Amino acid sequence: MQNFEYCNRTKIIFGKGTENQIGDETAQYAKSGSPFRILLHHSGGSAVRSGLIDRVKESLKKAGLEWVELDGVQPNPRLSLVYKGIEIVKKEKLEFILAVGGGSVIDSAKAIAMGALFNGDVWDIYERKAAPTQALPVATIVTIPAAGSESSISSVITDERGPWKRGANYEYIRPVFSILNPELTYTLPPYQTACGIADMLAHIMERYFTQEPHVELTDELCEGAMRAIIRNARTVFSGGEKNYDARAEIMWAGALAHNNLLSTGRIGDWASHAIGHELSALFDLAHGASLSIIFPAWIKYNIKENTPRLARFAAKVWGVDGAFYDYEQAALEGVFRMENFFRSIGLPVKFADAKLDPGKISEMAKRAVNFGPVGNYQKLDEKAVEAIYRLAAE
Amino acid sequence: MQNFEYCNRTKIIFGKGTENQIGDETAQYAKSGSPFRILLHHSGGSAVRSGLIDRVKESLKKAGLEWVELDGVQPNPRLSLVYKGIEIVKKEKLEFILAVGGGSVIDSAKAIAMGALFNGDVWDIYERKAAPTQALPVATIVTIPAAGSESSISSVITDERGPWKRGANYEYIRPVFSILNPELTYTLPPYQTACGIADMLAHIMERYFTQEPHVELTDELCEGAMRAIIRNARTVFSGGEKNYDARAEIMWAGALAHNNLLSTGRIGDWASHAIGHELSALFDLAHGASLSIIFPAWIKYNIKENTPRLARFAAKVWGVDGAFYDYEQAALEGVFRMENFFRSIGLPVKFADAKLDPGKISEMAKRAVNFGPVGNYQKLDEKAVEAIYRLAAE
Repeated sequence: MQNFEYCNRTKIIFGKGTENQIGDETAQYAKSGSPFRILLHHSGGSAVRSGLIDRVKESLKKAGLEWVELDGVQPNPRLSLVYKGIEIVKKEKLEFILAVGGGSVIDSAKAIAMGALFNGDVWDIYERKAAPTQALPVATIVTIPAAGSESSISSVITDERGPWKRGANYEYIRPVFSILNPELTYTLPPYQTACGIADMLAHIMERYFTQEPHVELTDELCEGAMRAIIRNARTVFSGGEKNYDARAEIMWAGALAHNNLLSTGRIGDWASHAIGHELSALFDLAHGASLSIIFPAWIKYNIKENTPRLARFAAKVWGVDGAFYDYEQAALEGVFRMENFFRSIGLPVKFADAKLDPGKISEMAKRAVNFGPVGNYQKLDEKAVEAIYRLAAE
Repeated sequence: MQNFEYCNRTKIIFGKGTENQIGDETAQYAKSGSPFRILLHHSGGSAVRSGLIDRVKESLKKAGLEWVELDGVQPNPRLSLVYKGIEIVKKEKLEFILAVGGGSVIDSAKAIAMGALFNGDVWDIYERKAAPTQALPVATIVTIPAAGSESSISSVITDERGPWKRGANYEYIRPVFSILNPELTYTLPPYQTACGIADMLAHIMERYFTQEPHVELTDELCEGAMRAIIRNARTVFSGGEKNYDARAEIMWAGALAHNNLLSTGRIGDWASHAIGHELSALFDLAHGASLSIIFPAWIKYNIKENTPRLARFAAKVWGVDGAFYDYEQAALEGVFRMENFFRSIGLPVKFADAKLDPGKISEMAKRAVNFGPVGNYQKLDEKAVEAIYRLAAE
């Protein structure tokens, strides 16, 4: 087990009706004196139609808070809107950012929070040319369980001029609190629910696939969380769209999947995220769908690499029996079951399923290793990444 | 799943050699200007003999910190020493409390931290006659993985005038940071290692045994953590006293067991702790040993109460097969295996094993329900508690 530091300061407020606490919770961050002014950031879509934004405004108003609204966040959130948000925050002297939505809205809010206090171009932070030293406080009301951005230090933004999709990871942007009400997820389109499930499973798998030899407690926690996600996903996709408990298990798992508890003492892989990001950047494919395509191919590519760990994954997460007779066969059976699971909830597992053009593979492989080889399970260079794309395109 | 709030702000610094960071970490809490003065609290025993206290002092000195030392903490930490600590902190105007030791030292430090800023008798807090509104910051270097006090809101103190053993739970006393180096546990006497293992297992079992029907993610996390503890305990007790990884898994599990993540969405039981506390108060029995005696009896007493959950515990944690043919038989087989496990690491599971006097049972039962019935799995009155003591004395 590796030495580690772990601390997660995000306060999670979880359960039915909790979005109505938003005004009182936010007001606790106000400095006394002048009225507390916040940026209310959202997509302008379903959160408005469902009446959630109105309820949020009512709660803010009751608590005596003032806000400026910025909507229009799209999936794979755009840098241009981040720039606009930074301008508004500076001009209006806003002190706090409230994101209402999924990972895209939260990631956009985090970028604005950094940019508002950064002397320079915020994109330089994502390009790893600069590092921030502070950020405005961010809080969230989560409507899509997926990215785990509600208690993570991560933000992923797309510069549409490239297009480039880049991530930044800083403790400053961990939300101060996040409100998670599973009822808000009842009306998600099935495809978005499924993409969220792939995303949270991938967050755990990226941590699970490590070469660190003795990480038994976190292995157990990862496996248990993955089993709980898979079982409850089946419930939701078998007529349980409004099954509170199943939605709740998935929502809480989505936050835990990415809050770094599950990577304590180990070094995660993260190649599949980097490889998948290019599918999103070039084809505007949903993040979760990029992962359901890339992860099975990643395991197949790595089948000779620490095969016992891949077999353990198959046995403990996918219930593959006979794992101890032929590790490789067991591991491949695990991939087969994972692909079936993804398909059963409506996700693509091959290029063709999502109508992606395999003609772009060489270009994407080049772009994916822009900062050097990706992954830690084994380092993957351009050739290896290309091979993974080809396995996914077969 | 119940609504919940969850936040754990303790920064965990985990791994080899981390105790040498103590000076620099502590210095971050100093207000600029005057020298930062802290109370260095420990038992005066093994932490001194091993040279740990000297290393700590060297690190504090290097960071420019000043300290006053208060040693003498005993297992089942005493109120009289807490009073002494409060007096010293007030007189010397100390601003920060550093606990070096196990749960007893940390709990004593937390009591002093509350008492130093409390206008009245600190014991009133433990008697539930008063509530604190603040506390000095506490940090810890953990030498015994057991109580989980290093990232919990709990403190348990014994008033030797009764004797009464009482707990207090306040967010104010959650340590600001805790340093956990598994190497420091290599030289623990086997009995202390074993008591710690029983304590952390009990912390998880208290949370696991709930009547909340849909808590699947946390069930998985609890079961996985318990399996990891049991397997690594077997390694340590099979000649692995200095097996870093096994010690590390146990130490990290001990902190997670009691940081409240594992109780999110559910209401725990906690009867066994209350019932066990009387064994410690009357016979000065180690806390872990009181739990290895009481928990098997508690399950036997509850065998008709939500038997499927008891059977699941037997199946998932103790590997009992056939759990789905006869729940009650499976549950009892689980208890049998738990008792065998406790015995295998040198712990008592019956009154006679620890030479406890069954003549005190009626008195203890009366005392245990001093504040009313205990437990939530089912409420236990004086008669029920007495029956559990009798099952443990059989």
